[in-house]
Amino acid sequence: MQKENEFIFGIHPIIEAIKAGREIERVWLQMGLHGPNVGELRKLIKLHQIAVQNVPVQKLNKISNRNHQGVIAFISPISFYHVEEIIPFIYENAQFPLFLVLDRISDVRNFGAICRTAECAGVDAIIIPHKGAAMIHSDAMKTSAGALNRIRVCKSTNLKTTVQLLKNSGLQIVACTEKTTDTIYKAHLNTPLCIIMGSEEDGISEELFSLCDQKIKIPMQGEIGSLNVSVATAVVLYETLRQRLIE
Amino acid sequence: MQKENEFIFGIHPIIEAIKAGREIERVWLQMGLHGPNVGELRKLIKLHQIAVQNVPVQKLNKISNRNHQGVIAFISPISFYHVEEIIPFIYENAQFPLFLVLDRISDVRNFGAICRTAECAGVDAIIIPHKGAAMIHSDAMKTSAGALNRIRVCKSTNLKTTVQLLKNSGLQIVACTEKTTDTIYKAHLNTPLCIIMGSEEDGISEELFSLCDQKIKIPMQGEIGSLNVSVATAVVLYETLRQRLIE
Repeated sequence: MQKENEFIFGIHPIIEAIKAGREIERVWLQMGLHGPNVGELRKLIKLHQIAVQNVPVQKLNKISNRNHQGVIAFISPISFYHVEEIIPFIYENAQFPLFLVLDRISDVRNFGAICRTAECAGVDAIIIPHKGAAMIHSDAMKTSAGALNRIRVCKSTNLKTTVQLLKNSGLQIVACTEKTTDTIYKAHLNTPLCIIMGSEEDGISEELFSLCDQKIKIPMQGEIGSLNVSVATAVVLYETLRQRLIE
Repeated sequence: MQKENEFIFGIHPIIEAIKAGREIERVWLQMGLHGPNVGELRKLIKLHQIAVQNVPVQKLNKISNRNHQGVIAFISPISFYHVEEIIPFIYENAQFPLFLVLDRISDVRNFGAICRTAECAGVDAIIIPHKGAAMIHSDAMKTSAGALNRIRVCKSTNLKTTVQLLKNSGLQIVACTEKTTDTIYKAHLNTPLCIIMGSEEDGISEELFSLCDQKIKIPMQGEIGSLNVSVATAVVLYETLRQRLIE
């Protein structure tokens, strides 16, 4: 459920909010909406690289039964970083920076839980895609136990370009995947690192997979053979921390 | 929400269900309920060591608006083991058995998530208290991703006695707690083991804490300084597995 203060509705108020620099998480536009102001709104959305979804009017009505004029903008409770802003400073905090890329992890609770664990395990920044990531609202904030206020979250319009940029900056790109025989315990994680975790449905996308320097898996003893993605992230991050503290 | 097939209501049907040996998760009795059949029901509940809670009638009405006669019994979707049944066989599966005690972990999703991770990490059995544990219903089953059908869950009417029994059987009792300076990475986990995880609110109870051979903590890098209990369990279980696989 959205709380009243987490969204803005109506074409003009949203145009003004974007112009004023408010952090918009995403915009829902009624399918087929048009008109002169709608054109201006679309241009601004494009200019500011805001995620936009065309939705049926019923979906908008569920959020607000007031006169939304076919458009609702969700305000982000946090400010996002651009990866480009962070790159020059990645070696500033630590000799071995630790980045975490979440490739289309869409469950809000999983995302919040990962942020909490990442903050505890010393991750420098989390990178999520512009499209296909979990929406960051009060549920994510709550599950993160406040970590979303403390950890840097970057939105990337193109994850492949972003990961290539990190690779060029000297980070080892590591995929956590079932498609390998190497376990996390054999991996060399005591190095400048970017760990990629894949979506709940289909794991890491092919284009990111091809950029990876190491592919590692978490050993499985039982019959189920799959961990929840937030648990898997915790296991990999803590193995990284172990190697850095102990080895 | 309870599904229709997960509970039985009415005094006589519940008496018959208990007599027929059905696995009752717990019974809700309306406060102040009395009568000759209620006396028989209470005796049976005591005899079969079923958890019982006295609740206001409104709570019962929320579950069923039919004629519940002041009593609802929740059917467990799984069968529980008694610790005594398992003790003779603890060294049967592995040289180093791995038991997990959940001391009053009450959140259903945390419990389900822990069961999933425990199955993947090779835990032999999970022990929960008779009272104060999460109720095992469809939400727990779903979060466990089926693990609840595959892992042994024991209910203990007295956790202290149970842990003492495991200790007498040669298991090292290990508490995961913030109240220590030893990290999980310094612990010796490659041994017959019983790990205790404490409740979300107040950790491990004093009486269990005093039985522990080792007290270990998960290192924290950030400012939040606390992991979700299902994530913390995953980190400890996988450090155990790492030591067993690698060392």
